[in-house]
Amino acid sequence: MGFAGLWESLLPLGRDPETGGYRRYSFTPADAACRRWFEAAAAERGLPAGCDRNGNLFARWQGPSGTALVIGSHLDSVPDGGAYDGALGVVSGFAAIDLLRARGFAPARPVVVAAFCEEEGARFGTACLGSRLLTGAADPEAARELRDADGVTLAEAMNTAGLDPAGIGPDEDLLSGFGVFVELHIEQGSALDGLGAAVGIAEGIWPHGRWRLEFTGRADHAGTTRLADRRDPMLPYAATVLAARQAAAGRGALATLGKVTAEPGGANAISSLVRAWLDARAPEEAALRGVVAEVEATARRTAADHRVEFGIRQESFIPPVNFDRVLRARVASVIGAHGKPAPVLATGAGHDAGVLAARLPTAMLFVRNPSGVSHSPAEHATMADCEAGVAALATVIEELAG
Amino acid sequence: MGFAGLWESLLPLGRDPETGGYRRYSFTPADAACRRWFEAAAAERGLPAGCDRNGNLFARWQGPSGTALVIGSHLDSVPDGGAYDGALGVVSGFAAIDLLRARGFAPARPVVVAAFCEEEGARFGTACLGSRLLTGAADPEAARELRDADGVTLAEAMNTAGLDPAGIGPDEDLLSGFGVFVELHIEQGSALDGLGAAVGIAEGIWPHGRWRLEFTGRADHAGTTRLADRRDPMLPYAATVLAARQAAAGRGALATLGKVTAEPGGANAISSLVRAWLDARAPEEAALRGVVAEVEATARRTAADHRVEFGIRQESFIPPVNFDRVLRARVASVIGAHGKPAPVLATGAGHDAGVLAARLPTAMLFVRNPSGVSHSPAEHATMADCEAGVAALATVIEELAG
Repeated sequence: MGFAGLWESLLPLGRDPETGGYRRYSFTPADAACRRWFEAAAAERGLPAGCDRNGNLFARWQGPSGTALVIGSHLDSVPDGGAYDGALGVVSGFAAIDLLRARGFAPARPVVVAAFCEEEGARFGTACLGSRLLTGAADPEAARELRDADGVTLAEAMNTAGLDPAGIGPDEDLLSGFGVFVELHIEQGSALDGLGAAVGIAEGIWPHGRWRLEFTGRADHAGTTRLADRRDPMLPYAATVLAARQAAAGRGALATLGKVTAEPGGANAISSLVRAWLDARAPEEAALRGVVAEVEATARRTAADHRVEFGIRQESFIPPVNFDRVLRARVASVIGAHGKPAPVLATGAGHDAGVLAARLPTAMLFVRNPSGVSHSPAEHATMADCEAGVAALATVIEELAG
Repeated sequence: MGFAGLWESLLPLGRDPETGGYRRYSFTPADAACRRWFEAAAAERGLPAGCDRNGNLFARWQGPSGTALVIGSHLDSVPDGGAYDGALGVVSGFAAIDLLRARGFAPARPVVVAAFCEEEGARFGTACLGSRLLTGAADPEAARELRDADGVTLAEAMNTAGLDPAGIGPDEDLLSGFGVFVELHIEQGSALDGLGAAVGIAEGIWPHGRWRLEFTGRADHAGTTRLADRRDPMLPYAATVLAARQAAAGRGALATLGKVTAEPGGANAISSLVRAWLDARAPEEAALRGVVAEVEATARRTAADHRVEFGIRQESFIPPVNFDRVLRARVASVIGAHGKPAPVLATGAGHDAGVLAARLPTAMLFVRNPSGVSHSPAEHATMADCEAGVAALATVIEELAG
């Protein structure tokens, strides 16, 4: 069975008919459909499959001995995400096994296809939750109390999905059976397109984090409150948005405010509260801290100008990840073309590979995305490039499990 | 029965226990409770009451002949509004009748207490909808299709509330029975407090309107999209917020952006669409048009800088209202203190009085609000000032229906 058929069978699940984007949120009916798809793909290939205590899915191609080579990615999506982010890595994992079996290859160690749970954090706000719980990087007690936008806790959502929230947390038994992890992912920029390469490899992941900003002013009537009497939090918020862009541009960094809520939210009312989230990423931790400090300084100064209170809270911080150098060189070499190793790219995006890199040698393959866009229905890879990704992954399996 | 008891009986209805603010949205259970309260207040006083075809409530103190003197205001609220806005005028209407009856006054013409429907437009987005439908200023066909935030149409909401949406529209029979309208309202600023007066009178209502702004960019991954490749609509939105303040300040006008939504709204996604509403008001129509033109110019320029599309649509525009000069002078004179007429104030807020002023002589009384705030739970008037308002309204009834 080729890549295309398997890909087509996953494509309709969790797709919003209006936007064409995906809403595969953990423990929802769309997620359940994706889980059934994973189990069916494993069953068709005679691979025993199951869900671990943290909601992560694994399908196992048995090998004679040794720790497993884990391949895969995730199946959940951001709101109106694209079809490839995560899903491409899981489909490619199964397709690479098909390719190797067709060639008569038998692995010398187990090969496991993984689909990690809640990688995007789109429902419960914590990215890579499944891999973090598995490795002990997330606290299970706190995780059970995470709430989605409707106030549903993770524990309640897991119960609804037929999973036991009491079981979440570190799983050393499972981890000790993993020897190496290779995550294949669509590129989230257009660097490979610029280089004319179908497949690349990750150098590392930039340090990045998320900060919640709260500007607290005073609700008032938009038609009767003199400008001088206002304590309008929208004004320092606006100044902060512009400052974030400037702070990032000056440091080769990235800063984004993509989520904002205004209360009470009436068109004829001055806001009492503007809440926004700063996403910031930089090649070095010092630059990242510099961006956040500059944003915070502008927010404080302009909030004070408008007699608005300002608060900032770090919601997440991910230190830099440098993938295993030896593994990276080996993988880059075997998947290279025309005698040259595959291109090596840095990325600002977090991945389960970044979480697992703290525990075992880990590498990432990227597949060319000529659209350059990510977390959007416009995200795209050609079928030829997807197949090149599968071929590269198969080559990596031959190298690491041959 | 005094003002205080009647006031206390209305106070708990539709109040949110968390914020202390009111959510009296039209045709909801909170609204139904307010309607029952109105009917009970009328019944206690032996005043025949009912609902017109447009959801407006009227209670009638019969007089021997002539057109009615209408007093009152509205009972609906903005999200988390204060207790006084609208409600004070309705309670004061009943309380003024109590006061006059206690003095043995019998009106020479009918006196009608009114509570107009959907004045705030908080549910269906059109302010003064009840009075606009009554006077023919709103199209009933279009009104039936107005939708609330959940997609429920006005027609559906009226049906649910036991009202017939087929009946909405101009009601000349009812209007022809109205001779004059006096709306009592809490002041929505602190001018009376500065003047040391408990009660004032309105000069007119500034021209004002609402414009919907749409900034359409491209959803993208916050962690991987280079700044140069972004089409982030949050940036021109932020520049527009700051420009609106500056444009208003330069013209003695008001401009507010209190409602904003970002799609897809993920903390780690660049927005595809930022939608915001500009509320603008000015003493003169030319100044108002100037504010909007300046805001639009900045929005277009900064949107183009970021390769973002910009669209603007006028959702409402209310021309200036100058209340009847003869009536104003007469009312100001009788409610004045120490031989001086009551202070006359301009306001930027729309009111049913502004709508009815197009059809009959209309005046507005304002009651002091030392907090200066409006559309907020912090809005406040002292009990003594509320009673001064009732006394002033009773004096006006004696003057106009004596």
